[in-house]
Amino acid sequence: MSEWFNEELDENLFNVGARTSIKVEKTLFKGESPYQKLEIIKTSNFGNMMVLDNCVMLTESHEFIYHEMIAHIPLFLHPNPKQVLIIGGGDGGTAREVLKHPNIERCVLVEIDELVVEKSKEFFPKLRVVFDNPKLELRIEDGIKYIENHQNIFDVILIDSTDPVGPAEGLFTENFYRKVSLALKYNGIVVSQAESPYYFQKTQKDLINTLRKVYPFVSLYLANIPFYPSGTWSFSFASKEVIKKMTPRSQELQKMISKLQYLNEAVFHSCFSLPNFIKHNLGF
Amino acid sequence: MSEWFNEELDENLFNVGARTSIKVEKTLFKGESPYQKLEIIKTSNFGNMMVLDNCVMLTESHEFIYHEMIAHIPLFLHPNPKQVLIIGGGDGGTAREVLKHPNIERCVLVEIDELVVEKSKEFFPKLRVVFDNPKLELRIEDGIKYIENHQNIFDVILIDSTDPVGPAEGLFTENFYRKVSLALKYNGIVVSQAESPYYFQKTQKDLINTLRKVYPFVSLYLANIPFYPSGTWSFSFASKEVIKKMTPRSQELQKMISKLQYLNEAVFHSCFSLPNFIKHNLGF
Repeated sequence: MSEWFNEELDENLFNVGARTSIKVEKTLFKGESPYQKLEIIKTSNFGNMMVLDNCVMLTESHEFIYHEMIAHIPLFLHPNPKQVLIIGGGDGGTAREVLKHPNIERCVLVEIDELVVEKSKEFFPKLRVVFDNPKLELRIEDGIKYIENHQNIFDVILIDSTDPVGPAEGLFTENFYRKVSLALKYNGIVVSQAESPYYFQKTQKDLINTLRKVYPFVSLYLANIPFYPSGTWSFSFASKEVIKKMTPRSQELQKMISKLQYLNEAVFHSCFSLPNFIKHNLGF
Repeated sequence: MSEWFNEELDENLFNVGARTSIKVEKTLFKGESPYQKLEIIKTSNFGNMMVLDNCVMLTESHEFIYHEMIAHIPLFLHPNPKQVLIIGGGDGGTAREVLKHPNIERCVLVEIDELVVEKSKEFFPKLRVVFDNPKLELRIEDGIKYIENHQNIFDVILIDSTDPVGPAEGLFTENFYRKVSLALKYNGIVVSQAESPYYFQKTQKDLINTLRKVYPFVSLYLANIPFYPSGTWSFSFASKEVIKKMTPRSQELQKMISKLQYLNEAVFHSCFSLPNFIKHNLGF
């Protein structure tokens, strides 16, 4: 008799009526921080898995997709990124991808929950390494407070948060994105995880409309991630300058290609192509 | 206490260790044909659902994705398709999309299992309508036998089958694809549902390598379908002529755009962009 982990979405909030389950070998850690419940589960076929408040955050087998896509799309579009801020992302996966770019001078990782960092280091060898990188500046504090005290510094800001309930709620507001805009340099880009375009259409529409109030250029891109609800995930993309051609710095992307398992130049262009029902929902 | 339908993949064959579940309101029909088990389930949020041998075939909410993508990619790439053959697809969804093309003169639908057609007509109003179309020729018989008796007739053949176990097993062999090639005209195209590139990598590799033995031009394209395992599905694409530019007949696509919920020209081009790990697996 095998055991399964079921992602039980809070139905009062989401009422999705669909869920993904993953076969479990054993639970390696179960604990609670002041912010959330954290579990580390050894799955049968997908390596170790991190779960926060019953939502799958990552599996060793497929974490590369989310992390490559949140980091490299803005970093290859920006003409010359040097300073990057990550809010959330305490597991280290996003920072690992950011620091594959040799031109990055400093990557600040602001995670509110120290337990996430601790357990990531303990159970995810491929994520652990980034915490030794001298270009990484890890800060355990509230991202919203951090950003209030930093202006005109960052080229790219990545909002690598959980869902807009619980600790990440404040990361989906107009007020927050105005502060993000102030923390960015004149041609800065902010990318946020933006939920499933299949199940969370209202959340996604609200986020895109919020961004439109603050930034002159807003877009959305997709990635196929098996263990997130619906298997299709999205990232919002907003820039302080209008970007006329959404083309990556091609040579640099080619140089990095052997280190990438998901992204290539064709995928780069394709991820911005939205199916009709998503375009209609978001007004693109 | 809510009930859930769990897609229980046969673990001896697939050993996936992941599954998708959908919340159920009630079971509308449960029966068995000489070929397979069929269930019609009313889901809480996704309309009626058809299940064959415990695998989700379609939900009313999202069936448009699979059906648009299996039909329109080859039909907009072929310069002038007039005769189309569908093997499987007894639910009628693929035929409905094929017959949106005004230039199609005849669409032959060969389904081995009459029960699928019957229950689709009974429980899926959006699929039912196609069975009244005078251009549709419905045949309840074995697709493999049908194809042996028809040569040099079809412009496009669509293999809209279940997984390569049970009734669809013979639809994944080299012998079958040689017969398909003979049934196609000189510039014919065959598209087949080709499983998940995340979970069924070996099946997919075998299929692509089989096609390469028979056709000079083989490709693979993707679609995001929430209730199929992993949420990402694929279609193999093979042509008797080498296609130099994979561009759709643009004007015709534009004319149909108001009838399409998923496909547009950007999605058309994007669906052939494969992530690195899929390219490596398949040798693209």
